[in-house]
Amino acid sequence: MEKSLEEVHPVKAFGWAAKDTSGLLSPFKFSRRETGDKDVKLKILYCGICHTDLHQVKNEWGFSQYPMVPGHEIVGEVTEVGSKVEKFKVGEKAGVGCLVGSCRSCENCTNDLENYCSKGIATYNAIYHDGTPTYGGYSDMIVVDEHFVIHVPENMPLAAAAPLLCAGITTYSPLRYFGLDKPGLHIGVVGLGGLGHVGVKFAKALGLKVTVISTSQSKQKEAIEHLGADSFLISTDPDQLQAAMGTMDGILDTVSADHPIHPLIGLLKSHGKLIFLGAPAKPVELPVFSLLMGRKLVAGSGIGGMKETQEMLDFAAKHNITADVEVIPMDYVNTAMERLAKADVKYRFVIDVAKTLKTE
Amino acid sequence: MEKSLEEVHPVKAFGWAAKDTSGLLSPFKFSRRETGDKDVKLKILYCGICHTDLHQVKNEWGFSQYPMVPGHEIVGEVTEVGSKVEKFKVGEKAGVGCLVGSCRSCENCTNDLENYCSKGIATYNAIYHDGTPTYGGYSDMIVVDEHFVIHVPENMPLAAAAPLLCAGITTYSPLRYFGLDKPGLHIGVVGLGGLGHVGVKFAKALGLKVTVISTSQSKQKEAIEHLGADSFLISTDPDQLQAAMGTMDGILDTVSADHPIHPLIGLLKSHGKLIFLGAPAKPVELPVFSLLMGRKLVAGSGIGGMKETQEMLDFAAKHNITADVEVIPMDYVNTAMERLAKADVKYRFVIDVAKTLKTE
Repeated sequence: MEKSLEEVHPVKAFGWAAKDTSGLLSPFKFSRRETGDKDVKLKILYCGICHTDLHQVKNEWGFSQYPMVPGHEIVGEVTEVGSKVEKFKVGEKAGVGCLVGSCRSCENCTNDLENYCSKGIATYNAIYHDGTPTYGGYSDMIVVDEHFVIHVPENMPLAAAAPLLCAGITTYSPLRYFGLDKPGLHIGVVGLGGLGHVGVKFAKALGLKVTVISTSQSKQKEAIEHLGADSFLISTDPDQLQAAMGTMDGILDTVSADHPIHPLIGLLKSHGKLIFLGAPAKPVELPVFSLLMGRKLVAGSGIGGMKETQEMLDFAAKHNITADVEVIPMDYVNTAMERLAKADVKYRFVIDVAKTLKTE
Repeated sequence: MEKSLEEVHPVKAFGWAAKDTSGLLSPFKFSRRETGDKDVKLKILYCGICHTDLHQVKNEWGFSQYPMVPGHEIVGEVTEVGSKVEKFKVGEKAGVGCLVGSCRSCENCTNDLENYCSKGIATYNAIYHDGTPTYGGYSDMIVVDEHFVIHVPENMPLAAAAPLLCAGITTYSPLRYFGLDKPGLHIGVVGLGGLGHVGVKFAKALGLKVTVISTSQSKQKEAIEHLGADSFLISTDPDQLQAAMGTMDGILDTVSADHPIHPLIGLLKSHGKLIFLGAPAKPVELPVFSLLMGRKLVAGSGIGGMKETQEMLDFAAKHNITADVEVIPMDYVNTAMERLAKADVKYRFVIDVAKTLKTE
């Protein structure tokens, strides 16, 4: 006889969930599994609000399941470890990002690229190995296989570290993989939001020259004076584009809204690389001839593997990189979602879960 | 006082030229420069007919200058060398490909990537350093700076080697640069024409598994039995595409006609690479999401630098790789162009210049 859901997941949990495509979040009682041999249980302290959460609670990608507890930028404290857990001890600070499972045996998994495993299990809105739904970090605690848990270095401010588990690794990984990590290289960062602003910080820490590319003049001062970018380019200004033609070794494009890529390819030097970190809904128009003339490439990159996520967080701690965050209480989350939809945040909302999630 | 063209180019030459956008070729008397200190003079023996020649004689790319002597797949015999020439001796066999000059000082040039120099000078339909037009290989002889001349290994059949100077390096270079040269990797080759058929040969010589991807079932037997491809895929057959999803490390796309690339991206494994060697006239529709999901990339590549072109020809000689050619007399060239427009050639026309170019 199959086990009931209550038997599989007997541990009471509490969080905020979206109940339908309105995306409105409200308190939600649910349950999680007991801490297995290889599992780590975390009391959740902070959880970032990623733009993905906004897409998912409203079913904008078309595969949302309700009720949905979002959140995949989780920082917490270890409160229990399974008997075979090797990497974590009770009391340590730890993080969980976008993934809580994968097949562990495919070529990607054996190459520390669990993020590209075709059987990867997302931290929420997915189905776990045991057939139950996964629930994310807008909740009091979470139980995760230690393989998918990251050590948070001692000196990191926890709220500001949380977004690195998604936004951080999403920008760090392509800089490494595509060789855009050599001091002196010049990269562009398109869009100055949650991804873009940490992208600038990682790029500067790697010794790169950084140009922020934006449609909004209002971001220039912030980009240069606060984030340390070397220059700023208005992507809709033909003169500025012309002056910067052929000057960049790579571009991280963080913008999911539809936008022309021909000008971006023009900004690249020969052998330059345009990397998409967000996916516009419609296919983009790619002028192949402009790729051929300079052996340029256009690629996509999504988060990173567990080993690299740990490397990213250790690198961030060493270089004092965190996200710029606005810490909010749990019951502000619906307002935060509305503001996020208008890009009205610098640069990431983070929910103070431990202090503000009321169980009643 | 400036020198007249006759003073700059006092050496009589003879070939076939297009006189206007009809693209019709006919006998043409012109002149070339005397052999300078660093120049090599070649008596042209064979010249391949590249699809580019067809585009250019008809001004399909919009920047044709007439009269135009096409031809950039040139093999000949050295008949004179300048006083400072170090690499060539009279009597040796040598080749000239798509380039006869570049700035020699930019980053690309200093990295043996003259093909990506923004001041690269094409073998025909371009303007040389001295301000005179360049004329290609449908002619009796040519004078070229030795830096842009390639040694043709002793054992190579000369007519069948000629197309390697363009079609060969165009397929060899991306296999090397994009790391698609490791034995056991699986690549697709889209289109089985001048480029595609030598692409298959290089890929097999590198120890790759090769699938030819074509719209035409009629090419299956040829691809597998004659060229040694491992498998064959009809790109318009959904069942065949589905069965091959996610199996390829890379794809060389040699097709310039408009065609969908979404199915090709689907054929790639994670981290797979789709490389365009020809440019469709219209921008292609690129589904960014499908790149992100597997960190895939789309790139362009055009010919190769001089050092790599020599490496390619030496590799070809060692592995007995030549193009499959139909050798034709000079006065057949207009018919050959018509047949080329209909893809009615296996796989490259090569003009027997030395034996058939009549000076009267």
